[in-house]
Amino acid sequence: MEVYMRNEWNGFTEGHWVEDVNVRDFIQRNYTPYDGNADFLEEPTENTQILWDYVQSLQKEERQKDGVLDMETEVVSGINAYPASYIKDELKGMEKVVGLQTDKPLKRAFMPYGGIKMAEQACTTYGYTPSPELHKIFTEYHKTHNQAVFDAYTEEMLHARHNKILTGLPDSYGRGRIVGDYRRVALYGIDFLIEKKKEDLKNYGYGTMTDDVIRGREEVAEQIKALKAMKEMAASYGYDISLPAKNAREAVQWLYFGYLAAIKTQNGAAMSVGRISTFLDIYIQRDMESGKLSESEAQELIDHLVMKLRMVKFARIPSYNQLFSGDPIWATLEVAGLGQDGRSMVTKSDFRFLHTLENMGPSPEPNLTVLYSKRLPESFKEYSSKISIDTSSVQYENDDVMRPVWGDDYSICCCVSATETGKEMQFFGARANLAKALLYAINGGVDEKTKEQVSHPYRPISSEVLDYQEVMEKYDVMLDWLAGIYVNVLNLIQYMHDKYFYEAAEMALIDTDVRRTFATGIAGFSHVVDSLSAIKYATVKPIRDENGVAVDFETIGDFPRYGNDDDRADDIAVWLLKTFLEKIKKHPTYRNSEATTSILTITSNVVYGKATGTLPDGRKAGEPLSPGANPSYGAEKNGLLASLNSVAKLPYEYALDGISNTQTINPGALGHNKEEQVSTLVRVMDGYFAKGAHHLNVNIFGVEKLKDAMEHPEKEEYANFTIRVSGYAVKFIDLTKEQQLDVIARTEHKAL
Amino acid sequence: MEVYMRNEWNGFTEGHWVEDVNVRDFIQRNYTPYDGNADFLEEPTENTQILWDYVQSLQKEERQKDGVLDMETEVVSGINAYPASYIKDELKGMEKVVGLQTDKPLKRAFMPYGGIKMAEQACTTYGYTPSPELHKIFTEYHKTHNQAVFDAYTEEMLHARHNKILTGLPDSYGRGRIVGDYRRVALYGIDFLIEKKKEDLKNYGYGTMTDDVIRGREEVAEQIKALKAMKEMAASYGYDISLPAKNAREAVQWLYFGYLAAIKTQNGAAMSVGRISTFLDIYIQRDMESGKLSESEAQELIDHLVMKLRMVKFARIPSYNQLFSGDPIWATLEVAGLGQDGRSMVTKSDFRFLHTLENMGPSPEPNLTVLYSKRLPESFKEYSSKISIDTSSVQYENDDVMRPVWGDDYSICCCVSATETGKEMQFFGARANLAKALLYAINGGVDEKTKEQVSHPYRPISSEVLDYQEVMEKYDVMLDWLAGIYVNVLNLIQYMHDKYFYEAAEMALIDTDVRRTFATGIAGFSHVVDSLSAIKYATVKPIRDENGVAVDFETIGDFPRYGNDDDRADDIAVWLLKTFLEKIKKHPTYRNSEATTSILTITSNVVYGKATGTLPDGRKAGEPLSPGANPSYGAEKNGLLASLNSVAKLPYEYALDGISNTQTINPGALGHNKEEQVSTLVRVMDGYFAKGAHHLNVNIFGVEKLKDAMEHPEKEEYANFTIRVSGYAVKFIDLTKEQQLDVIARTEHKAL
Repeated sequence: MEVYMRNEWNGFTEGHWVEDVNVRDFIQRNYTPYDGNADFLEEPTENTQILWDYVQSLQKEERQKDGVLDMETEVVSGINAYPASYIKDELKGMEKVVGLQTDKPLKRAFMPYGGIKMAEQACTTYGYTPSPELHKIFTEYHKTHNQAVFDAYTEEMLHARHNKILTGLPDSYGRGRIVGDYRRVALYGIDFLIEKKKEDLKNYGYGTMTDDVIRGREEVAEQIKALKAMKEMAASYGYDISLPAKNAREAVQWLYFGYLAAIKTQNGAAMSVGRISTFLDIYIQRDMESGKLSESEAQELIDHLVMKLRMVKFARIPSYNQLFSGDPIWATLEVAGLGQDGRSMVTKSDFRFLHTLENMGPSPEPNLTVLYSKRLPESFKEYSSKISIDTSSVQYENDDVMRPVWGDDYSICCCVSATETGKEMQFFGARANLAKALLYAINGGVDEKTKEQVSHPYRPISSEVLDYQEVMEKYDVMLDWLAGIYVNVLNLIQYMHDKYFYEAAEMALIDTDVRRTFATGIAGFSHVVDSLSAIKYATVKPIRDENGVAVDFETIGDFPRYGNDDDRADDIAVWLLKTFLEKIKKHPTYRNSEATTSILTITSNVVYGKATGTLPDGRKAGEPLSPGANPSYGAEKNGLLASLNSVAKLPYEYALDGISNTQTINPGALGHNKEEQVSTLVRVMDGYFAKGAHHLNVNIFGVEKLKDAMEHPEKEEYANFTIRVSGYAVKFIDLTKEQQLDVIARTEHKAL
Repeated sequence: MEVYMRNEWNGFTEGHWVEDVNVRDFIQRNYTPYDGNADFLEEPTENTQILWDYVQSLQKEERQKDGVLDMETEVVSGINAYPASYIKDELKGMEKVVGLQTDKPLKRAFMPYGGIKMAEQACTTYGYTPSPELHKIFTEYHKTHNQAVFDAYTEEMLHARHNKILTGLPDSYGRGRIVGDYRRVALYGIDFLIEKKKEDLKNYGYGTMTDDVIRGREEVAEQIKALKAMKEMAASYGYDISLPAKNAREAVQWLYFGYLAAIKTQNGAAMSVGRISTFLDIYIQRDMESGKLSESEAQELIDHLVMKLRMVKFARIPSYNQLFSGDPIWATLEVAGLGQDGRSMVTKSDFRFLHTLENMGPSPEPNLTVLYSKRLPESFKEYSSKISIDTSSVQYENDDVMRPVWGDDYSICCCVSATETGKEMQFFGARANLAKALLYAINGGVDEKTKEQVSHPYRPISSEVLDYQEVMEKYDVMLDWLAGIYVNVLNLIQYMHDKYFYEAAEMALIDTDVRRTFATGIAGFSHVVDSLSAIKYATVKPIRDENGVAVDFETIGDFPRYGNDDDRADDIAVWLLKTFLEKIKKHPTYRNSEATTSILTITSNVVYGKATGTLPDGRKAGEPLSPGANPSYGAEKNGLLASLNSVAKLPYEYALDGISNTQTINPGALGHNKEEQVSTLVRVMDGYFAKGAHHLNVNIFGVEKLKDAMEHPEKEEYANFTIRVSGYAVKFIDLTKEQQLDVIARTEHKAL
């Protein structure tokens, strides 16, 4: 392959990136850090306003139609399943970034590969009739992921799943969480990427055809086909993406075409767009320096890209919506962070992306994530705090703990989980309900709700008062069982996903020699910690039903709770996390992937809680579990900082997949005016993250606003009212009533 | 599961077979050996005559239509793709065994899973237009075996394939060679088989989800679906096969439904029916003893089953027909053999199956195979010899060498290859051209035809005269290279076949804990032996072209040739076989299968020969290779027995997949009248097989008959004129002209 500085790269500093696919090298050599303030930012252009008004009118119509504007039933989604389509034909000329998932804005595609049953159920749920012909094709001729997984499940697995000790498993929806390095399309053009993949295919396995090599070779062949299809798609919009992007507008457009290919072929729970702001800024900077682009035009490009990310839709089934409430798709997009050389990676475009929340109002998508470090420019920290206070639409993750693990070019692949961009993929694995597992330990593996024997028939605890030592021993055995079945369930799911629903378009933009992580997750974290603390420090008497199953607990005396900066409870928290991870790591994982875990429930805490009995910590049967790594509702007695301190004690290295913490702060707690509030929030985050904490969802509002919004969703002011839930942002009025009540029940910090 | 002697089993002797699926045990406890003569046999019934006349009229029509009577283009073949169909609706009542592959007799089904391109090419070759809709489905939605293999092939593999050093690979057609134990359907009924498979699925992997376990579990799930589909299919014909067969007619019908499911879902190069005669005889015997069945009715059942086996058709492409000429499907069916307890397994039904060749005339299918032992009843040996002399439609395999390896319930899964019935599957692997490899050794891996560098660029031989030692060293290196690429090509093909074209219906009737063999094969055997002998014992001078590639040889002096009972040549033959197998066995094989090899080319010797240059033994470029393990044409100078002795020296344990030998004997050489001929032929086979030989195709006719048939195919007497070619029987007039000339060129033994 010829290697030289192409014309499209004029003005860029040369480096390894010229020869090999290496976007990180390109960024590090070419970006312009910005430590000024936000004064340079521009208002939305007229194009933006007209387009966004129109999209908002469609969103309103969508809400009136029970959340679905339109749905495909006849066309199987694919990179080239539809002709070029636009937000509105009459406004076509205004769109600076073109490309829709289907033939109409907000219309949801038909994606059967994950499971024909689910694809059809999504249709019928919203009153659409799925095509009988496609039914025949995807039942008789082509098997789908969901069918394959259920073909191979063991009875024990089905039982564990049915009893919800394992929950939210990606066996009936796309696993998602794979971030293609969409920047590659812009920097290199498709032809170079195809050449590189062809070289990889040539070398892959060197002729030795083991199962692994065969699978890998077939995958690379599929990737090459996907790259060719991307070119074809772009051509249908009048663009030739075989060569690198020549300017900022093309860079944005090329990158978006890459992402569009992903969301036309996959409906994963998370379809992140990745870390693109610093990259795009290089193109914008070059065009501005040569006088080809104004600030207003630059902002327009970013606004239009973000508008497209706000419009991504997937057809979902009711059980999915219960788990992940409010129609999220996790188009997670990162800004800020530091380079490994210590320079801030904040550019003007990092401001521009946050500014979209002002130009087009708050929005759940893209899932804007600030990669936080105390060493970020103060002006940027202040601007993002201000945006948080105004919109509650931003989350923060600790770049100082992630950078040593993932380098300085990682992306967040879902809510909070980091992956090295273009170098890595993740096998998403939902979560195990460790609170239920504690009840199983007490009840010998008999489910407290269904009364079925779910685990091996271990000896239950029969004493009148729970003995801490005995509980810990039995919990250890139960967690061993749970970790075993969990890893094996995931091995099966990931195998079938690769087989029946392989992400060729995304993987085409990731290195062939990919690193694979195997994500597991924990639900019910705070309740296990507090329950064990109760058993240790207070007196807990099980109340057993006629079958001897503990269905309630009488807890006498006080006990320390997680969320108060009290080591007696917090040490249990650390022990629990570490122990679970160790048990997971004992088992061989699919494709020799690296096992990780997370404390991260998204909104599934409500569904999980419904299926979980009363716990020794006082949480009653059916009540939501506390989300993610959050302390239990009402447990936090010592204010926000003590709560944050407890969470910050959990070592990130035990939960590389993320430790999600969601807090709601009354604006009054931060200060009397915006300036004071901004500066306080910055100090809170500096302190929190300096302790090694991983993540914070920041909500700034009073609970009264939530109550009012729940009762009066029709009020104009609530149309775009966005809040951060565990791991993503959501329009509050799009949540189910149950979820809204859960959010309202959460601790609102009125003081630090 | 309840275990008891079911009503359907009244009169049978109980054994392990009642509890577990164990047909062999059932047979051994229940069959009635027969050592009488053929006098009991009956003529065809009127039903048989009418039906067979009609089928023959269709066959005639088929031949007039270039070999294809009708072809499906709109329906994808499957167990229940068609409603119940009959040879002719008006004759429906006459059919004692019902069931067609498609909706019309001799109509060929559309089978895209092996490769949509091939399925379509088969249509267009015969003037049919494939469905555009199915094209879309099997290119856009569902990938096929052929596409997947080619996605993953390396350039070196494509190159080796293109240069025909590896040939006939099952990458564009079904691998076949898997014999479902169709008897199980009759003995147990589908419900019991489903229960057993469900138990297997329950236990498979015990919860540990390695890739192997996952793949296996999914396969068992597919098998269960196939069993359910078989029930459905049988129900459409008015039969409930959920329970065991109650009588002989049901036993034949149930068994055939099992086989029918296989040939509706797979179009493998070999679709053997297996060892069924002794099994069916038990049912016939029981019915006859209770007066429910007459000999004429018994023969009618066998005749009608055989008629169905004669009607199996697959849509083939021209390149396939060149390899396997004359439309064979290898419905191989065995008779005779001994039990491990020393009893003959010949029953009256073994006679009845051979008798079909008299009742309905000679026929290539089913591929009737006598499992020969000197200890078979003389009366049976004489009867089968008589049938051979009359029809040239029978092959013989040495039960005394196979029984120690495969037990006493093996089936022949293709032409000559044994597999333990219901316990084993084979990965078919076509063959490597060892004659071409010898030229590669001489030419440093440059192909003598294409002049391309195919192997690694080894040092060629540059001397004026070939030195035996040098040739052997270089051949050793070349065989190492060839064995490596060959095994890896097959690993890839078998992986993709399992993935895209899994034989669920056949595997459903095989034990879950299946033994897998990995079949490789040798082409050009005799020419390598004779060429090496020439280099060793005579003086061979390469004649090189302008690039230094040896394209011809001058051989001065005489040398011993394989086929004359001369150890100097025959020792080289044994060395070659052993060496190649050892080299194959060095490499890891797919699913830890057991590598075997064969010397068995079927009719592909003609195509392989076309691609192979001139050899030191005097065979000129483009001439057919000698088929299978046959000595080269014209090499045999010492008569039939000496030729047989040479072949018999090849140890069966080095070629467990089979050593095929095809001989043509002038009737005169066997004696002056039928009685003398029969007795001589029995003596010849007794002697040949006593030496440990594996296989013999027996043709009894003079070459003049062949020449006349080639020139006058329209003569009525040649309509069913059947001959044995390497590994199967074929109607002579269905062979291509090239193949006919090849057969005519073969040695006709006019003396023993």
